[in-house]
Amino acid sequence: MFRGIGASPGIAIGKALVYKKEVLNIEKRKIENAEKEQERFQNAIESTKLQLEEIKIETEEKLGLDKAAIFEAHIMVLDDPGLVEEVNNKIEQEKISADYAVNEVIKTFIAIFEGMEDEYMRERAADIRDVGTRLLKNLLGIESINLATLSEEVILVAHDLTPSDTAMMNKEKVLGFITDIGGKTSHTAIMAKSLEVPAIVGLNNITKEVKNGDIIVFDGEAGIGYINPDVKKSETFQKKQSNFKASRRELLILKEKPTITEDGRRIELAANIGTPKDVQEVLKKGAEGIGLYRTEFLYMDRNSLPSEEEQFQAYREVLEKMQTKPVIIRTLDIGGDKELPYLNLPKEMNPFLGYRAIRICLDQPEIFKIQLRALLRASVYGNLKIMYPMISSVEEVRGAKEILDKVKKELDSEGIAYKTTIPVGIMMEIPAAAIIGDLLIKEVDFFSIGTNDLIQYTIAVDRMNEKISSLYNPFHPAILRKIKMIIDHAHEAGKWVGMCGEMAGDLTIIPILLGLGLDEFSMSASSILPARRLLGELSYKEMKEVAEEALTLSTAEEIKNYIYRKTSGRQ
Amino acid sequence: MFRGIGASPGIAIGKALVYKKEVLNIEKRKIENAEKEQERFQNAIESTKLQLEEIKIETEEKLGLDKAAIFEAHIMVLDDPGLVEEVNNKIEQEKISADYAVNEVIKTFIAIFEGMEDEYMRERAADIRDVGTRLLKNLLGIESINLATLSEEVILVAHDLTPSDTAMMNKEKVLGFITDIGGKTSHTAIMAKSLEVPAIVGLNNITKEVKNGDIIVFDGEAGIGYINPDVKKSETFQKKQSNFKASRRELLILKEKPTITEDGRRIELAANIGTPKDVQEVLKKGAEGIGLYRTEFLYMDRNSLPSEEEQFQAYREVLEKMQTKPVIIRTLDIGGDKELPYLNLPKEMNPFLGYRAIRICLDQPEIFKIQLRALLRASVYGNLKIMYPMISSVEEVRGAKEILDKVKKELDSEGIAYKTTIPVGIMMEIPAAAIIGDLLIKEVDFFSIGTNDLIQYTIAVDRMNEKISSLYNPFHPAILRKIKMIIDHAHEAGKWVGMCGEMAGDLTIIPILLGLGLDEFSMSASSILPARRLLGELSYKEMKEVAEEALTLSTAEEIKNYIYRKTSGRQ
Repeated sequence: MFRGIGASPGIAIGKALVYKKEVLNIEKRKIENAEKEQERFQNAIESTKLQLEEIKIETEEKLGLDKAAIFEAHIMVLDDPGLVEEVNNKIEQEKISADYAVNEVIKTFIAIFEGMEDEYMRERAADIRDVGTRLLKNLLGIESINLATLSEEVILVAHDLTPSDTAMMNKEKVLGFITDIGGKTSHTAIMAKSLEVPAIVGLNNITKEVKNGDIIVFDGEAGIGYINPDVKKSETFQKKQSNFKASRRELLILKEKPTITEDGRRIELAANIGTPKDVQEVLKKGAEGIGLYRTEFLYMDRNSLPSEEEQFQAYREVLEKMQTKPVIIRTLDIGGDKELPYLNLPKEMNPFLGYRAIRICLDQPEIFKIQLRALLRASVYGNLKIMYPMISSVEEVRGAKEILDKVKKELDSEGIAYKTTIPVGIMMEIPAAAIIGDLLIKEVDFFSIGTNDLIQYTIAVDRMNEKISSLYNPFHPAILRKIKMIIDHAHEAGKWVGMCGEMAGDLTIIPILLGLGLDEFSMSASSILPARRLLGELSYKEMKEVAEEALTLSTAEEIKNYIYRKTSGRQ
Repeated sequence: MFRGIGASPGIAIGKALVYKKEVLNIEKRKIENAEKEQERFQNAIESTKLQLEEIKIETEEKLGLDKAAIFEAHIMVLDDPGLVEEVNNKIEQEKISADYAVNEVIKTFIAIFEGMEDEYMRERAADIRDVGTRLLKNLLGIESINLATLSEEVILVAHDLTPSDTAMMNKEKVLGFITDIGGKTSHTAIMAKSLEVPAIVGLNNITKEVKNGDIIVFDGEAGIGYINPDVKKSETFQKKQSNFKASRRELLILKEKPTITEDGRRIELAANIGTPKDVQEVLKKGAEGIGLYRTEFLYMDRNSLPSEEEQFQAYREVLEKMQTKPVIIRTLDIGGDKELPYLNLPKEMNPFLGYRAIRICLDQPEIFKIQLRALLRASVYGNLKIMYPMISSVEEVRGAKEILDKVKKELDSEGIAYKTTIPVGIMMEIPAAAIIGDLLIKEVDFFSIGTNDLIQYTIAVDRMNEKISSLYNPFHPAILRKIKMIIDHAHEAGKWVGMCGEMAGDLTIIPILLGLGLDEFSMSASSILPARRLLGELSYKEMKEVAEEALTLSTAEEIKNYIYRKTSGRQ
């Protein structure tokens, strides 16, 4: 049995695939039979060459000849008689294992190439390193798993999953994730929720405990699972799984219904998206709008800024597909943990407290203006609202508005159409902003609370830092007070407040958010129907009283327990 | 003329010493006369050897033979005929300058050594790098300045000054600092203030504009200065200098007086210190107490934790010297930008949002307890108050208090005396704490506002990050509102509030802090007398009204200007 942090609900049953980042553990090992070791080396060379040939052909077919050339170069490294000879000599003279010998020779080769004057030759050091790693993996019998070509359905067992892992993954074959590290808001958790596959994270050693092919069953809500369960356990989980699927089908009835609390308060449930492709899922789950379109994905994984036309097409696609439903598009929120190599952003000691989002846009208006032009042009195709991230002061809002006005004038003079009544809002995610909501709301049409950053800055805790991530707590009284301040300031001015952070989709937190007066909840598409069901069962009046009482409590623990008591059985 | 950020007041007049971190700018330069270039190389070898001999002898005298051995090894590198020959060949065959040839050969040598299997040999790569740098400096005519052995009085012109620069500096010979980078709260600024030498920072290119031996005059308050001024300018600055010195003497009259506003409100002016040695200066400047004793200096620049006895002696010394005056000792505030290598703290992506201060102490109570024992034992020698840094929740305060109670019980059972009535307070520097002052004040006897971190977290801006440091603004309305919240919460509970961040000593900010109701201001010793004079000229009642009005304004700029108008001529 294993127990971790339930990161995405559902029941998974399937075969384990242990996906390990290859850590090459090469120890100096004395051998007796040098010839046998040399043979192992020779075999590894042959298999490596075969693999490279295959990759070369595949790459050539998919990406063209020029991209495949690199693998030809890799094969040539393996054909270098100098390298082969030196390894063979080392094995024979020093009586050491082939992997150790290869590693030493490769290291020396790399050092020599890196020390060379000629830039071209220096760059070859990277090729030698790549080939060396591949060769060593073959020697050590480490198989490289290619997540793009999964052929059978598996439960992925990993230390952690990076965005690049999940990007290349064949998603249709993945039944669930279980990982060593990560928390409720880690990339793995977010990805699992959006794929609607169950996941458990923070299992510490699961990659060591599970072997390829083991049968795994687990409950992604409870955070509990079993390796190679007995028949009884298996049956229990199969039952659970069909129940879960039935409940999910039930939820679909709520798809076309509005979100209304038991006592008649109308709430707007919107979805967060990253690309136009996500819209399909959003509509399937009955979202009433898009509360956060993270445009930075348009800017990532490429070598230069996206053009105005490219952006325009993406925004237009989302707006058209959403028809009259509101679409809040957030302007570029880059920096922090999201880098754009081609912008040459400086390395920072504390990137989360650094040059990012609106700070970059105000500092480099030439980048910002292109996005604003694309947004304005797209505005005629739907119900667009523009939102600025990382606002900390009135000056910044005014600065952004000035640039927007300039861009409008430019479009006027070019005779290009745009809606003149686009509502403009800001993310409330910096503590300073939360304190001066009364001043900021005068400048904008709405607020959207970004809870991940708000919590992070308010408690001064990097939630990715495991040593202290336990301090990251949405129930901290200061967080709830800030949310209340933000909502009250906006309501006093007759404007509305949304939330687009992780909290908005968390069924344990939704009750108090309702009670605090939140108007719009934006979450991953998969959370919408459960949230709609929950909100339909809650009374706004009651939750208002619960929120008021909760705000008098001293600790996050007390608040969480109190809310749980007051709403239990309904989440 | 040059103009930057006035970082420490006073008038400096003196000769410039440009202190550059040696950036070795080696370009590939074709030469015609190879023999001449080889001669240059030979001369550089000889001078380098002479320098190394000198350093070796000096080190031997001061630190012993074993520490000097490294320089013997360095000399041996220069005696290596392989190296000399290879450089000479390169110069002759490729017709390139000696520095370029040396750099290439050294790089290859380093690569070879680093690629070696033997660990001892690999470590020699660092020696080769050191010697190479020294050799290149001699070739390029770059003199290494040793700040420890300044023989004449100078104005130090630097890109920036690091703590290690100022630690080794012969402080008696330094008339002032002017630097390319830095802000009002940079290390250079803080150091200048504490040495009471004038300083201007943020001058961008001053290290390029000034040459060694240039005459510099500057005004560290106005942030203006001149390179090689004419006679008239010189005379003006000499006059200014004697006026400034006279005014400083005048201030000394205030030394023995209490701090009372024009309308009779009593304020406590305390000093921030880092070591017991600082107490002398504190008393000389008429501080009414120590508002912040940063104990982390006891833990820094060493290989292991300081013992209980060592800490006890330090705390006792400070308490005894301060007699009945209050001494607030802050428990270990390490992490963030202050590292303790021997604690093996993890590398963090955002150290300011990481594992630091009370978080470490609660996580590793064995370290915390030793400090608390030392503090309790020292308490009988004076007027001690204990303060915890980086508190973000009620739970943390309770956790720290529990450990303190345990330590008290231990001392009871050992029959060791301590004061039973030591007031305990917390730093208010995390946004979450500022919002829940009403909950926190129930747990403690006082608050002390740490403005550097409070501003940093509230505005989500790393003030050391130049790209965005302009966002770091104490006049931000959210900062002033938070300070007011903190003070009001404490006063409602009948308790007092101090401030020990940079803001407390800033004459332009003191008026509004007075108006907000701050009870204690703790600052660098050098700021105390000017602050006392200013506070004596201000009316609390008036400043209260100014503060109230300021809090209705929308931007930092408006607030700053408003306060300036209302108090001008008095700072």
